[in-house]
Amino acid sequence: IVSKLPAVGTTIFSQMSQLAAEHHAINLSQGFPDFAANPFLLQRLAKHSAEGLNQYAPMPGVPMLRAQIAALTARCYQRQVCADNEITVTSGATEALFVAIQMLVQPGDEVLLFDPAYDSYAPAIQLAGGTPVHVRLQAPDYQVDWSLVSAVMTPRTRLIIVNSPHNPTGMVFKESDWLALQQLVLTHQLYCISDEVYEHMVFDQAAQLSAHCFAALAARTVVVSSFGKTFHVTGWKLGYAIAPPSLTAEFRKIHQYVTFASFTPAQYAIADMLQQQPEQVAELGQFYQQKRDFFAAALATSRFTLLPCAGTYFQLLDYRAIAAEMTDVQFCQWLTTEHKVAAIPLSVFYQQGSTDRIIRLCFAKEQHTLAQAAEILCQL
Amino acid sequence: IVSKLPAVGTTIFSQMSQLAAEHHAINLSQGFPDFAANPFLLQRLAKHSAEGLNQYAPMPGVPMLRAQIAALTARCYQRQVCADNEITVTSGATEALFVAIQMLVQPGDEVLLFDPAYDSYAPAIQLAGGTPVHVRLQAPDYQVDWSLVSAVMTPRTRLIIVNSPHNPTGMVFKESDWLALQQLVLTHQLYCISDEVYEHMVFDQAAQLSAHCFAALAARTVVVSSFGKTFHVTGWKLGYAIAPPSLTAEFRKIHQYVTFASFTPAQYAIADMLQQQPEQVAELGQFYQQKRDFFAAALATSRFTLLPCAGTYFQLLDYRAIAAEMTDVQFCQWLTTEHKVAAIPLSVFYQQGSTDRIIRLCFAKEQHTLAQAAEILCQL
Ligand SMILES: CSCCC(=O)C(=O)O
Ligand SMILES: CSCCC(=O)C(=O)O
Repeated sequence: IVSKLPAVGTTIFSQMSQLAAEHHAINLSQGFPDFAANPFLLQRLAKHSAEGLNQYAPMPGVPMLRAQIAALTARCYQRQVCADNEITVTSGATEALFVAIQMLVQPGDEVLLFDPAYDSYAPAIQLAGGTPVHVRLQAPDYQVDWSLVSAVMTPRTRLIIVNSPHNPTGMVFKESDWLALQQLVLTHQLYCISDEVYEHMVFDQAAQLSAHCFAALAARTVVVSSFGKTFHVTGWKLGYAIAPPSLTAEFRKIHQYVTFASFTPAQYAIADMLQQQPEQVAELGQFYQQKRDFFAAALATSRFTLLPCAGTYFQLLDYRAIAAEMTDVQFCQWLTTEHKVAAIPLSVFYQQGSTDRIIRLCFAKEQHTLAQAAEILCQL
Repeated sequence: IVSKLPAVGTTIFSQMSQLAAEHHAINLSQGFPDFAANPFLLQRLAKHSAEGLNQYAPMPGVPMLRAQIAALTARCYQRQVCADNEITVTSGATEALFVAIQMLVQPGDEVLLFDPAYDSYAPAIQLAGGTPVHVRLQAPDYQVDWSLVSAVMTPRTRLIIVNSPHNPTGMVFKESDWLALQQLVLTHQLYCISDEVYEHMVFDQAAQLSAHCFAALAARTVVVSSFGKTFHVTGWKLGYAIAPPSLTAEFRKIHQYVTFASFTPAQYAIADMLQQQPEQVAELGQFYQQKRDFFAAALATSRFTLLPCAGTYFQLLDYRAIAAEMTDVQFCQWLTTEHKVAAIPLSVFYQQGSTDRIIRLCFAKEQHTLAQAAEILCQL
């Protein structure tokens, strides 16, 4: 068999989670919480399932849930979106990203990405016959130099994928970034995919901006988000895509043959959460900011250098003072097997690799987990 | 935006279910049960979720579930498959079919399909850059003429998709069909996707055969199945793919960027069901045969002609004696809006359409639902 993805192995997230399990390491690698989800949410899942909501959901998602997504979008960003023809519920943000890319990329098209980038973008582009074009962001603050982005544009450039808050770096777009993006998209008639799965984890009183806030940009954008991240249930695999009606129509044509629909009782449970406990979303930034700050304080005496984290639930650490001779992959192996803390090497998020000495740790963890990990890290 | 699927509209299943809801019709169109799932299964879902199994499952599926799938495959077909590298859990059989097609079809490849065919195959092939080549099956018994299949082979033919028991016709492959298929696949070095989502709904003491039963065929085949169909929870969107290690490795490369993983607590719940109530699967054929026979008896005095149904939970009806002048699409519209019974027109499953006067009804329904629908149908 001829491989469609010859360069691809098992995702780093699976690899590191497995290594962590084998070595009984504290798993700060793959991004998921180690604490319980809201009990009300779990009760609603059980209730809707027990009451019989176990058959196919409508292909675009349960109407109640789409109505709540529209209300959330209006609350957070003052954008009115139509639940009927601008919102599609998907089997995780991963499916939404995959479908949006298949929809927008024709064979031969070029797609702008930032490097480091989440690992699913490039393979999805390749499967659509497109070519990823990477613009590198530089440590420590990973700000976008928009003149570099303009410089790599060609007549084949069709799409740009942005991700703010940014995984793995924790960088968050400022208003000037959104405006520069909007300008670029309009000037070159691009489409945009805005991966906003960490949208509610923005820290230090920064305004929570989004592609939703820029009407001309939003008109050419698919915004992707995730309930798994927002409600601490990454295993529920529920996300959604918001796009103007013409894009949503094409999106659904593909979605209906990729998964058709998503787990029904969970859609009702999330709708209940959004309706009855809307403060959960509003308080999420505060919740994770406390974890970020607690973890940073616990690492104060370590020899790691903490990079800035303006959003997401990931903290980057520079380990040069500890083991400058090790690559980040070696360092993560060593840290997991010898010291029982699992992390993600940053170089795997780069198309061309990276010689930076930086690792990513997930702080979506109980305080005692973070304290225990920090204690180990401070001894290195 | 240039459409990737210009010919595609909303699936007939969504259309008819919506029309049924609008007209308060008995919905025998889209294939899903109207009765409750096993209470033990629902309790286990609630339990595993309440106990905290809400984060990412391993990308190939929860190990316990894969072990149970291996045991089921051994029980039903005496085939030993390796849970580690031959089984992948997917977000419904739809995702498994989509991923298998993306993996096996290169741009320019031809793919053999039977007509009528389930509606997701052709769009998935088109998205991969391939061309569907349809071999027509003829009413009333829709048997495969394998010489016709050989006749359409070209050097570009790469893959054949089979589906036994067959949706929408209820046809089931005999041993001679499987042997002819195996011969064809080996002779032309094809790959095969065997869509077996109705595998446990085979009637009249027929041996339950499968691609699993033919080792040389199985070595080049992805077998796709569905827990939604088997356990009466179509909204759970859980299916799986079984394939030899080299195919499974490529399958997972794509799966990990399409959905990554599937709803975690449901995977544990299904594993519990398979382990603790294995008789549920063994009795499924009997269960649906009774429904088929009840529905047929209730239609005995109608003017419809029942076509043979050897498997699946669908019954075909020829309505020529009632309204020969109407196309099947018109007839289904009329039946739904005027007589409050929703069905699926068979012509939509044909690439080139069909002038047969045949509709498909789903009998995965409570006895009283079937009785009520039959009473209406007998008055036409
Ligand atoms: C789909 S597993 C990856 C989880 C994640 O988003 C991350 O760790 O970056
Ligand atoms: C994914 S909705 C279609 C359900 C089904 O399998 C059918 O009705 O044929």
